[in-house]
Amino acid sequence: MEIKGKKVIVEGKEANRIYNKGAYGKFKGKKLYLSPIEACYLVEKGRLDAAIQQFFESAVKKEKDFEIKYLVYRDLRERGYIITIDKHFYLYQRGHRPPAAPSYIVMPISERAIFSIKELVEWLEKMDKNLIIGIVDEEGDLTYYIVKFFKLKGKFEEKNYEGSVYLLKDRCIVWSEKLIKKLEGDFMGKSCNKFMLLSLMEAAYIAERGAKIIKDGKEIGLQEFMKYAKKIQPDIEERYFVYRDLKNRGLLPKTGFKFGSHFRVYDGSPEKTHAPYLVHVVKSNYRAAWAEISRAIRLAHSVRKEMVFAMVENDIKYIRLKRITP
Amino acid sequence: MEIKGKKVIVEGKEANRIYNKGAYGKFKGKKLYLSPIEACYLVEKGRLDAAIQQFFESAVKKEKDFEIKYLVYRDLRERGYIITIDKHFYLYQRGHRPPAAPSYIVMPISERAIFSIKELVEWLEKMDKNLIIGIVDEEGDLTYYIVKFFKLKGKFEEKNYEGSVYLLKDRCIVWSEKLIKKLEGDFMGKSCNKFMLLSLMEAAYIAERGAKIIKDGKEIGLQEFMKYAKKIQPDIEERYFVYRDLKNRGLLPKTGFKFGSHFRVYDGSPEKTHAPYLVHVVKSNYRAAWAEISRAIRLAHSVRKEMVFAMVENDIKYIRLKRITP
Repeated sequence: MEIKGKKVIVEGKEANRIYNKGAYGKFKGKKLYLSPIEACYLVEKGRLDAAIQQFFESAVKKEKDFEIKYLVYRDLRERGYIITIDKHFYLYQRGHRPPAAPSYIVMPISERAIFSIKELVEWLEKMDKNLIIGIVDEEGDLTYYIVKFFKLKGKFEEKNYEGSVYLLKDRCIVWSEKLIKKLEGDFMGKSCNKFMLLSLMEAAYIAERGAKIIKDGKEIGLQEFMKYAKKIQPDIEERYFVYRDLKNRGLLPKTGFKFGSHFRVYDGSPEKTHAPYLVHVVKSNYRAAWAEISRAIRLAHSVRKEMVFAMVENDIKYIRLKRITP
Repeated sequence: MEIKGKKVIVEGKEANRIYNKGAYGKFKGKKLYLSPIEACYLVEKGRLDAAIQQFFESAVKKEKDFEIKYLVYRDLRERGYIITIDKHFYLYQRGHRPPAAPSYIVMPISERAIFSIKELVEWLEKMDKNLIIGIVDEEGDLTYYIVKFFKLKGKFEEKNYEGSVYLLKDRCIVWSEKLIKKLEGDFMGKSCNKFMLLSLMEAAYIAERGAKIIKDGKEIGLQEFMKYAKKIQPDIEERYFVYRDLKNRGLLPKTGFKFGSHFRVYDGSPEKTHAPYLVHVVKSNYRAAWAEISRAIRLAHSVRKEMVFAMVENDIKYIRLKRITP
């Protein structure tokens, strides 16, 4: 065993033995080059002979974020996967190994890192493989998320509306029985005894499709309505942009407040099916603690829904994060 | 029926009828004074004769946050509760009514409102009743949380430690088999093959109770450790303050990352019991969207845990928020 800069080099029978059982490292001629992560794991497993503590401590100095990377690498190896290291971690499906193509890129991330939606989208756009994020928590435990662009589609048809919706200070109310009936048929609003409450999104939507908005006895246009709505809900524009897009896709978005997201989204009648998606609307500069993202995904799964972030820039990108157990 | 400023006044038989069935309003002499909220509800129910739309619209102008208050009031009345209005909403247990004492104060809040931990603590300290928060979402649906100061207590005894923990760049590692065994017995750290990972909190804790922290081959004191730890985990001081307090109370805190909180907390052996609490550490200036709080509580309940916020100022205040269905 020879140490040369970052790499650990082994030769001869030892090199073949290490490569054949587990596809560790990369051959250059007859020499097998191991990264500090691979070498350290082989030392931990007793397959390379070195003092683990010193080896580990020197690797920490050589490789950026060594501990995080090592814990992800180690966990996947312990689960019996083959994973190779080049610019990224490349993960093979069970039973596969080089020279076959890997199936996934795995990004090791510390729970202390900040989640940036823009960064995530850039990764997805750059990479030609499926992306898995492996998050190391305070105690060294791993959580894995598979991340991908997501297509949402449902079976609803868009309708047009007639009648008036009254904008009060904080709520939009419909008093006309006819319009209430129609909206009920489209699973919109919430019927109370003698009136119906509409969300700001619903009010904007039906206004765009024929209904009138009345404020203080006068009809106001959609633009004026949005200007007012923005005062009570500053991110209304992005939210409505996504709401409308979901409606266009034949889906039915309803508030996701109880689940901590902007929308729960139905792809069929709420009377027959539960909402399969939670959609959270974010701007492209959205950043959050990974713990928060973890909470959102975990909650979505606990109510059998998929967590989808809708990133609004000029268009909308839907990104699904799904927890997996490798 | 007479309208006088904010109040609606009824007299005679009608007043008695309204008061007797439901304890609406307040008698002054023979006149029954109704708040706009009470009056509007009675109009909606057809017990007062007026045009609901005009009545509603004028109430919006008279009473601050009328819509939010009305939706909470209405929801509780529809569930069959008696609720009176004075400075706050006063809620009676089922089967109770004035002149008995009410059991709860209900605070109506819009999902668009911002959660402030400091404000919540001030409410709890000021009020002599149990506090329920009623949150109105975009669609007018209600979620109720009961909020209270909370005492946490467990059965663990505090121990002392001998040996060394090595602080690398991001992680703390124990190499000594003896110390690893001891820590395993106390359900601390995460054992890997030949080493154990400790969280920053755990490392600080065992250092305070006898162990040494080694960085780059040299022993460092707890203060130096905390200074370093603060660079990688800026809120380490608050978190550790709570960690230590929980240990003092005989509890076992472990990372709550998977649940989006700082700690999951055991009150007995993790081999025999699941962690009954999630504790999230916040400074007194902590503010968040109510949707986020809603998500945290919902997630805690979905894994059968109670959500507790630990507000750190000079001391620690534990505040439990629990979702209830009235």
